[in-house]
Amino acid sequence: MPFSLFHIKPEIRILGIDDSALVSERILVVGTFFRGGMWLDGVLSTYITRDGMDATDSLIRMISASKHRNQARVIMLDGVTYGGFNPIDIVRLNESTGMGVIVLMRSMPDFENIKNALYHLEYPDERFEIIKKAGRISRVVTSHSHTPVYIQCAGIDEMSATRIVQLSATHSNIPEPLRVAHLIATGIICGESCGKP
Amino acid sequence: MPFSLFHIKPEIRILGIDDSALVSERILVVGTFFRGGMWLDGVLSTYITRDGMDATDSLIRMISASKHRNQARVIMLDGVTYGGFNPIDIVRLNESTGMGVIVLMRSMPDFENIKNALYHLEYPDERFEIIKKAGRISRVVTSHSHTPVYIQCAGIDEMSATRIVQLSATHSNIPEPLRVAHLIATGIICGESCGKP
Repeated sequence: MPFSLFHIKPEIRILGIDDSALVSERILVVGTFFRGGMWLDGVLSTYITRDGMDATDSLIRMISASKHRNQARVIMLDGVTYGGFNPIDIVRLNESTGMGVIVLMRSMPDFENIKNALYHLEYPDERFEIIKKAGRISRVVTSHSHTPVYIQCAGIDEMSATRIVQLSATHSNIPEPLRVAHLIATGIICGESCGKP
Repeated sequence: MPFSLFHIKPEIRILGIDDSALVSERILVVGTFFRGGMWLDGVLSTYITRDGMDATDSLIRMISASKHRNQARVIMLDGVTYGGFNPIDIVRLNESTGMGVIVLMRSMPDFENIKNALYHLEYPDERFEIIKKAGRISRVVTSHSHTPVYIQCAGIDEMSATRIVQLSATHSNIPEPLRVAHLIATGIICGESCGKP
């Protein structure tokens, strides 16, 4: 159910989701409920299998069980593979949760490289299909940097998604829900959080 | 080394520390580095023993190993017992880290009740000595609520500590570094964060 630009408020509830470092077979995934780019309202967590095929189901279960699920309108992901190459089906994630999904990337993905890497794992074709399903990539520039970020969307139009990325990127060109989810996931697993390249 | 009100900037670096629910013998403790009450700069974590005597040493080790240790000027604690009745010696924490320590409490502690509870554990007198060492309790009212909070201090004067609590309580009458450390610790251990009474 796409929604229009007309309805986007500065305090729109966003759920940012990131994973931790690949230090074991069970990978911690952290969700942060934010109001726009300002306030952290809640934290979720779950585990997925490193290079497994369970990320989409685990995320749907984590979100469905949350008391915040009816307030949040948008999910933000950091790429479409978590815990190594565990792919997230963003169309199914949108349909199951009713929330728009925005995938954020720091650079344009190199699909040839990804395809080659997948052939070292089980189900390479299924994984690649799920990754391709995320669809069209568009470019977003925030007020923090001339370096653009890139997005893919499901259940939300590109113009609305662009606006939401821009309004929630209050501290860097990475939206706060994703920046903070990353700090938490690495801080818990490694003892101290670390930045991303 | 106490510091004066004169030096307190709105973006003073604060390390807030809270623990998670008592669901096992090893209790997760989370630290959040904040700039004033606004930005989360980093996340730390460690584990302490439920009802053990290792909390002070674990916190000192966690802080000493951090890359942020030279920027943060103040540590905020949520009470002086973590992981059940594992007591934190705030004088030793201040001396070992060089950072001022502010203990925040939602209500006046009932020392008679605490003393009775301690007698079900090993080392009750040592625990009570450490708890009493936190010293004088003073009352702070923030702009968010008529309900006061209460503080104890080590290595920082009460007036400076009061100002720091007030400037970092940007979202409720609990300073952001403690509010967010609590959301993280419970969200990671319970799957979803929960509030405090």
